[in-house]
Amino acid sequence: MNSTEDLHARVALTWLTEPGTRLVHRLVGRLGPVATLDLLLDGGAPDETLRTAVAARLHAGDPRAVAAEAVALTDRLGARIIAPPDDEWPAPLGDLEGLVLPGASRKVDRETAPPLCIWVRGGWPLGEVLDRSVAVIGARAATGYGVHVATELGYGLADREWTVVSGGAFGIDAAAHRGALNAGGVTVAVLACGVDRPYPMGNSALFDRIAETGLLISEWLPGAEPLRPRFLIRNRVIAAGTRGSVLVEAAARSGAAQTMHRAIALRRPAMVVPGPVTSALSVGAHELLREYDRTRLVTGLAHVLEEVGRIGADLAPPARGADRPTDVLDDEAAMLRESMPRRGAIGADALAARAGVPVRTALRKLALLEELGLVTRRDDGYALTRPQSSKG
Amino acid sequence: MNSTEDLHARVALTWLTEPGTRLVHRLVGRLGPVATLDLLLDGGAPDETLRTAVAARLHAGDPRAVAAEAVALTDRLGARIIAPPDDEWPAPLGDLEGLVLPGASRKVDRETAPPLCIWVRGGWPLGEVLDRSVAVIGARAATGYGVHVATELGYGLADREWTVVSGGAFGIDAAAHRGALNAGGVTVAVLACGVDRPYPMGNSALFDRIAETGLLISEWLPGAEPLRPRFLIRNRVIAAGTRGSVLVEAAARSGAAQTMHRAIALRRPAMVVPGPVTSALSVGAHELLREYDRTRLVTGLAHVLEEVGRIGADLAPPARGADRPTDVLDDEAAMLRESMPRRGAIGADALAARAGVPVRTALRKLALLEELGLVTRRDDGYALTRPQSSKG
Repeated sequence: MNSTEDLHARVALTWLTEPGTRLVHRLVGRLGPVATLDLLLDGGAPDETLRTAVAARLHAGDPRAVAAEAVALTDRLGARIIAPPDDEWPAPLGDLEGLVLPGASRKVDRETAPPLCIWVRGGWPLGEVLDRSVAVIGARAATGYGVHVATELGYGLADREWTVVSGGAFGIDAAAHRGALNAGGVTVAVLACGVDRPYPMGNSALFDRIAETGLLISEWLPGAEPLRPRFLIRNRVIAAGTRGSVLVEAAARSGAAQTMHRAIALRRPAMVVPGPVTSALSVGAHELLREYDRTRLVTGLAHVLEEVGRIGADLAPPARGADRPTDVLDDEAAMLRESMPRRGAIGADALAARAGVPVRTALRKLALLEELGLVTRRDDGYALTRPQSSKG
Repeated sequence: MNSTEDLHARVALTWLTEPGTRLVHRLVGRLGPVATLDLLLDGGAPDETLRTAVAARLHAGDPRAVAAEAVALTDRLGARIIAPPDDEWPAPLGDLEGLVLPGASRKVDRETAPPLCIWVRGGWPLGEVLDRSVAVIGARAATGYGVHVATELGYGLADREWTVVSGGAFGIDAAAHRGALNAGGVTVAVLACGVDRPYPMGNSALFDRIAETGLLISEWLPGAEPLRPRFLIRNRVIAAGTRGSVLVEAAARSGAAQTMHRAIALRRPAMVVPGPVTSALSVGAHELLREYDRTRLVTGLAHVLEEVGRIGADLAPPARGADRPTDVLDDEAAMLRESMPRRGAIGADALAARAGVPVRTALRKLALLEELGLVTRRDDGYALTRPQSSKG
């Protein structure tokens, strides 16, 4: 847990320097948030640009007072602020420390450090929910085709107990969130403004449903405006916080494609749904597939599960020595493991049906998974073995 | 030129053993067609399967008489039979000698030797016409989307003076042929039956137009039936005879996908147009893109020209020593070169417009192309420099 003082300092620094600023993140890592804030407020930022930015922001208010107000407002909203090393903090966001975007000349492509803190509205622990999550993103001006595909993907992923992450925008984002909600699953909207005023207004009924059964999260203080560059800054959290990203529709040079560049640079599965070549809304999708070897064409849920299942296994902490037991899994064993409920147990028959594997095969592979320590046999069926230590 | 005796023997062997039989092709290479025919007719085929096949066929007629009849019928049809080393013979078909399909268990995947001879209906020299050709292939039960894309591609390729090759089938094949015809270009239908009875009957008006302005070709004798395995045998000629193949629509495990496997194995550009993931007619296309690294997603003419232009340059005989001058071309110079008419000259302005390059740039790049010996400046504009020696 963070001390109150640390948390207030993180909030103040977020307001003062905007999320993602690499130098601030490094200073916090070296000096801690309180000393970093003191340093910046004393005009001691070791960089001219940052000093100028801080000085400009100080005209708008006193960072410590702004932070205290934001913390109080967060409480009143029934929201919370999380920061490392909180248990709830999603460890994979740490990968943003090493994110290097090729040819990054714009600020949004350079200032891609992990968030200093995150506002969360909703009941689930963020880290746990993102641990098994897929981003489904795409165009705002989506076509009926794109909306259909995104809804199906959102539904299918949620139905397999994967968290569906998106940006809460019109079009593909909203379709993905809705699909997940319709499946009774968990969905997370990563906002580029305060969690008290999710943007766009037109999706407010959707945001209410998400806040009830999933999560609204943001790196920005309550009340923060959805300024244009913030969407691009926000995208790195979608890319880094999930096991993989699926782009459904995108026009040429879209914001969703930019999220995919981050997923590619982070070596997360970067999946792209193709579309008719006659559609302007698929141009960005096809460009990604043509230009980046690391993108993967996917046509539906099965392909997505194949990608994130594999990498999910890769990312899992080694259970015994250096070799990861999941490395040895064949397709059927991997699919069975992917099909296990996140919580609770499942019977072999039900699991076999869910994974689309014959029951006899399922029993054989379950024995293997048990032997590898990945699955535990219980009175009520098979359950995923809980990792020994939290990743947070 | 082949002697009459050699040609008759090739026709007889084609009838006796079906096109593509590797052993027969090897024997012809070693002994010549006449001695090979003698050997097989004496029951001396060095392979049990071939001996049995020959013996079975002999019940249906005397190969020499069948050949004489076929040659006479070919004359009456106004068609011709070509064979190596005729000038008109398309040299790239020789690549079929080395074609190895991974995991080939079926006969059609093993017996993929070059044709012994080809029937040609139409005025163009086959080798020359195929020297700058692209195959556009796909599903018979094409959707409106696929037909639209194939027609546009056929038109665009023909408009850039590329020959459009396809199989004359309903759906994508017919759309590609029609697009090329509408552009006033050359199109070649590679048939799996005699050139006197192109199949399917429903396309007979199309075949008439192709025979008038393009070519109908076949490895089978006039009168030959379009038996199902023949389509698959035929596909290797489409893949090997062209600079690259574009698949527009294909259901799972289609014949068109099989042609693409041949193009991939021959290391020809294997291009695939994606489609809506909701369409069963794009499943085969997406499978190819997912399963083969060597397939290339293309969304239209520009992408196709990029692929075949590059390889076209690679295949061109070195003009000066070992370095190919085309290796040094940048995108604009390559595009200008690709946009030159195959015959005759073009003004710099018209060429710049065709290539989508500013006129000033075009003039600079044309000077480079001239210096490299790839383009010749004439009184009436710029023309492609004719290669010193024919490849035939």
